[in-house]
Amino acid sequence: MSAGRPRIVILGGGFAGVYTAMALERRLGRRDDFEIVLVNKENYLVFQPLLPEVISGSIGLTDVVSPLRSLLPRTDVHVRDVESVDLVRREVLTSPGFKPQPHVIGYDHLVLALGNVTDFRGLPGLPEHALPFKNLGDALRLRNHVIRALEEAAIERDDAELRRQLLTFVVAGGGFSGVEVVAELNDFVRRAARRYRGIAPDEIRVLLLHSQDRILPEMDASLALFAQRILAARGVEVRFRSRLVAASGYEAIVTGGERIPTRTLVSTVPTSPHPLVERLALPKAAHGRLLTDAGLRVQGEENVWALGDCALVTVSANGATAPPTAQHAIRQAGIVADNVVAALRGSATRVYDFRGLGTMGSLGRRSAVAQVLGLKLSGFVAWWLWRSVYLMKLPGWGRRLKVAAAWTLDLVLPAETVQLRLGGSQGITREHFEPGQYVFRQGELGDRLYIILSGEAEVLRTEGDREALLARLGAGQCFGEMALVQQQARNASVRCAQTMDVLSLAKEEYAVLAANLPDLRRSFEQLTAQRSTVAQAS
Amino acid sequence: MSAGRPRIVILGGGFAGVYTAMALERRLGRRDDFEIVLVNKENYLVFQPLLPEVISGSIGLTDVVSPLRSLLPRTDVHVRDVESVDLVRREVLTSPGFKPQPHVIGYDHLVLALGNVTDFRGLPGLPEHALPFKNLGDALRLRNHVIRALEEAAIERDDAELRRQLLTFVVAGGGFSGVEVVAELNDFVRRAARRYRGIAPDEIRVLLLHSQDRILPEMDASLALFAQRILAARGVEVRFRSRLVAASGYEAIVTGGERIPTRTLVSTVPTSPHPLVERLALPKAAHGRLLTDAGLRVQGEENVWALGDCALVTVSANGATAPPTAQHAIRQAGIVADNVVAALRGSATRVYDFRGLGTMGSLGRRSAVAQVLGLKLSGFVAWWLWRSVYLMKLPGWGRRLKVAAAWTLDLVLPAETVQLRLGGSQGITREHFEPGQYVFRQGELGDRLYIILSGEAEVLRTEGDREALLARLGAGQCFGEMALVQQQARNASVRCAQTMDVLSLAKEEYAVLAANLPDLRRSFEQLTAQRSTVAQAS
Repeated sequence: MSAGRPRIVILGGGFAGVYTAMALERRLGRRDDFEIVLVNKENYLVFQPLLPEVISGSIGLTDVVSPLRSLLPRTDVHVRDVESVDLVRREVLTSPGFKPQPHVIGYDHLVLALGNVTDFRGLPGLPEHALPFKNLGDALRLRNHVIRALEEAAIERDDAELRRQLLTFVVAGGGFSGVEVVAELNDFVRRAARRYRGIAPDEIRVLLLHSQDRILPEMDASLALFAQRILAARGVEVRFRSRLVAASGYEAIVTGGERIPTRTLVSTVPTSPHPLVERLALPKAAHGRLLTDAGLRVQGEENVWALGDCALVTVSANGATAPPTAQHAIRQAGIVADNVVAALRGSATRVYDFRGLGTMGSLGRRSAVAQVLGLKLSGFVAWWLWRSVYLMKLPGWGRRLKVAAAWTLDLVLPAETVQLRLGGSQGITREHFEPGQYVFRQGELGDRLYIILSGEAEVLRTEGDREALLARLGAGQCFGEMALVQQQARNASVRCAQTMDVLSLAKEEYAVLAANLPDLRRSFEQLTAQRSTVAQAS
Repeated sequence: MSAGRPRIVILGGGFAGVYTAMALERRLGRRDDFEIVLVNKENYLVFQPLLPEVISGSIGLTDVVSPLRSLLPRTDVHVRDVESVDLVRREVLTSPGFKPQPHVIGYDHLVLALGNVTDFRGLPGLPEHALPFKNLGDALRLRNHVIRALEEAAIERDDAELRRQLLTFVVAGGGFSGVEVVAELNDFVRRAARRYRGIAPDEIRVLLLHSQDRILPEMDASLALFAQRILAARGVEVRFRSRLVAASGYEAIVTGGERIPTRTLVSTVPTSPHPLVERLALPKAAHGRLLTDAGLRVQGEENVWALGDCALVTVSANGATAPPTAQHAIRQAGIVADNVVAALRGSATRVYDFRGLGTMGSLGRRSAVAQVLGLKLSGFVAWWLWRSVYLMKLPGWGRRLKVAAAWTLDLVLPAETVQLRLGGSQGITREHFEPGQYVFRQGELGDRLYIILSGEAEVLRTEGDREALLARLGAGQCFGEMALVQQQARNASVRCAQTMDVLSLAKEEYAVLAANLPDLRRSFEQLTAQRSTVAQAS
């Protein structure tokens, strides 16, 4: 940077980033001697602890988030993805918007508050079939998916296997996030299902998978046991020492090989640092978190700061590592703001010294667990405390009023089962299959075309009682094109023979591509012609 | 149909369909001598008059709709698209759900309540670039789009043309629907823009295009004039005798050839009957609406009924045609229910004889126009009446309470600018360009690949002050692939030479397809190599 006031650029709009900007705005006062820029890919701050309530819609969908521009009147907010950071030229490059031109933002001080991401890499089938639970979009997608499963189960009367898959809901990860999601999901599904003719309450299964011996490792054992009892009493099956290792569109696969049939799989684990942090040449700890000094400056850097979940911060008083929670992020934000301002104005710096106030987790339906200032609370009292604390933490009285009103009405109203869909194509997707699973069966309506990326499939034709093997297909080969090209029912079944990843194209996308890329259409037509001949001969 | 109780199948879940099912449930009583099935593609009834309020988020996003299963406890609700109807075999085929198998639903009586659709066929560029405003998804998409435009305008400081496009909002159609949308959109944009640093109030333009001499043709001229004055006072430019005839991603084109630069174009016109009705071999009036007798039976059919916007219904008392409004649909539903039950039980039939109570339209911000029982009302009184009537028409006390609470809070709270995104890829889209428009410019970041479907483009390279024409491209040719293949900035500009439709693929989709379809990748690589050689030689 150069002429004009120095510019502080904050990357990330979670608690860490937003509270840093808020603290900087306060310290700006009337002097107006620096500029604040914040880059985030959404235009709101997610109030993470309330996010699970989006599943049931018990509070307004937009009330668990706060628009950044209301929170930060004196900050330049850029709603963009960050493409890259050039530490030498001191520039941030943001992704193109309406115009395919990226923005370059120069900085004098850079604050990294990018948090972490749910990372399914290396777990077969999870990137394709597991739903993360991090932001508002995830929560809405899960809500819609669950309602769709109930809708389909309500009209599916013949296929018992499909019904079981549709009515089984699996959550992986027994930390705060997973526990709050499973509690809310369980309450919502069981309440909503009462509205559906033809779904019996005992058909619904909700499971929580956890890799350790008890849930909520962040809390005291007695509170974790209390939470386990509450969840069990409400119908959640908790599986211990069960790690989710793979998934397909029909099942969750856990350590030991057990397969749980399900169409709804949420996973809050594992997490890893933001991909941008991964790419930056800065010193990092074992799990990829940025190493900072006691004043939250990234080690070895002069003008780069880090805080929140993407940083490894040591509490100077006791040498402990600060846990990745909102209360720590908020306190760290104050320190970063002070120290950046100190660097600009030459005033005194501070060190991070917050030991935490305690932890709380909601179990839904008027129960929670809390461990605050040495006290252990559970049940209604903890729930009341949980709601009060978070209500007061919500920014702005308007939002507090709205949430309080919604919570009050929710006590008397039935479950809200509106499915909010925004269109958006399912055009080209990847899918993962395990041996023995059918991609489709003979006689079904053809609505997708598949290309094998890895693994093997068998093509089978049933005639009377006989099932004949027509072909074996491997990587690079495609199937399912006949029903699309000829607009008819599937004339054979395709079953996975060896663990298989496929790319699948919806009928609509295929039609558009085929209509406009003659080469593509010709090659599929040739393939179809060959296969028809083979099939008739066999 | 055959054994068991006779089955009545209703297609469509708007006011017409849902109120028919509700009336049938009441007439079912304890006799339980028939089955009711309703098929709709969403699991809720949209409360159409409140839909524009979704734009501002002033009432809860799910409160303008009612879940069908709460409204219809004794009806079998199928949340599916209808694929086809076989009038001879008396069967309805619904689209595949989680399992690619369609459902077949046999019927004894069929009730067609499919409404109409916004139909952009034959208007160049509208299918690609105009937003319809019919259902909850449309309203949410518009809201998100408007917020995104504000976000981009707030950080776009150099390109004055782009700023003007981003801050101009155009609504086509001056009937009730268009007027309510433009009123709400105008209020929301102007309120929200106050939160954005760097957007001046006078940069915002909101236009209403209407093909006739005055808006609201359904109402008395004095009320229409009142509405025009209110809209003008609030900053809406109303254009008369202006029909929207074409659009591109950057502009709306109206009769006479005027081009209005805009990135946000909503069109509530023209409408046509549901495509399924179009395909059915049943007697229809000039605009494709189904012809019914006085008892709402489709002419010439014994067991097929039609009502609401997809039917042409004559009021038997005065021979007038019933207008396509909710109050008529609801009254028609009672008649259809009576007459279907009469056909089943052999009781007396009734004829449709409702003359209407009047019409109302909201102008946002405490103003409305109403023409009720011979009275003409405008301003605050009409607005109060409008809100009271619709509040009482909402199904269920819970929802009424929620909406009343939200309306109250809205009076004191600032505009809510949270952008709700559900992911969903923009993968493969069609775009329309007019001569002189740039698809992209040299130096921009390459994020899409284009295939020309029709029309012509010029490839231009700027060096210093000189602009050289490198090539002319026509249908079937593609461009933009070099920046994608080589991951670099655009090395030339592409400008539309003759009205052009293109298919465009996002970088991500291209990458997936190219990685998995070697033929496709090879052909693009060859093309790139050829063009590089040409470019260097030139």
